[in-house]
Amino acid sequence: MSASCPLCLPTQHEVFWQDDFCRVVLLNDADYPAYCRVELIEHIKEMTDLAPPQRARMMKTVFAVETAMREVVQPDKINLASLGNKTPHVHWHIIPRFANDKHFPNSHWGEAVRTSALQANIHWLPEASKKSLQDKIKAHIECALSS
Amino acid sequence: MSASCPLCLPTQHEVFWQDDFCRVVLLNDADYPAYCRVELIEHIKEMTDLAPPQRARMMKTVFAVETAMREVVQPDKINLASLGNKTPHVHWHIIPRFANDKHFPNSHWGEAVRTSALQANIHWLPEASKKSLQDKIKAHIECALSS
Repeated sequence: MSASCPLCLPTQHEVFWQDDFCRVVLLNDADYPAYCRVELIEHIKEMTDLAPPQRARMMKTVFAVETAMREVVQPDKINLASLGNKTPHVHWHIIPRFANDKHFPNSHWGEAVRTSALQANIHWLPEASKKSLQDKIKAHIECALSS
Repeated sequence: MSASCPLCLPTQHEVFWQDDFCRVVLLNDADYPAYCRVELIEHIKEMTDLAPPQRARMMKTVFAVETAMREVVQPDKINLASLGNKTPHVHWHIIPRFANDKHFPNSHWGEAVRTSALQANIHWLPEASKKSLQDKIKAHIECALSS
């Protein structure tokens, strides 16, 4: 635990799933409504600071979120990333991308190429879809971790 | 195989390691000299289009590259990403980041915040380090895949 690390504090985001190893949160990103993050609970900097079974566990969780996201919002592409330059505490971004989103085909950290599609309500996540996303994330993680 | 996919063509990059499943190439990025990519051989779009054992194999390879990179260039942070918005053929970016590199702490796809450190020769990869990186990548992948 690091006193200065925002990921070591109680999360401000909606928690979709959690165990003692990691949690899945919905970021409520205005441009990417289904954008989730998988956050390690322990304050560890790099994936290779984890033992191989823990790395595998983290990735099974990431891929379970990706699977649920593809089923519910059917994005044109999934983007996965673990950067941590500003917050060196392992966390994975799982970002559903659409061909008409604000930055596509650029990274969502790159140059915006159009007005947010959200303003046209194109990719808004209805409450029922959000519930479905949460249910499917839970089911896919529990299945992945039991195998 | 897709006729229009650059990753389905013979690579133009230096191949550090390859089997029938994936290859590791050095990108020779002017700002990030040790920047490597792990590229799936088969033309597949998403990690979750692979079966779980193949996903695990891909990630073991990515983490073996990360391990070798940390040993040889000792970056301040490792960045991992699988985007594929422009080239929807599974490939992983493994990017060694330094606190004084061109974009740090931003994503290297984000806004540049200083002149490339390379111009001051700070992070240049000497030939001996490149050879060491290649040797360690090979050793770590072979160890990871045998366990």
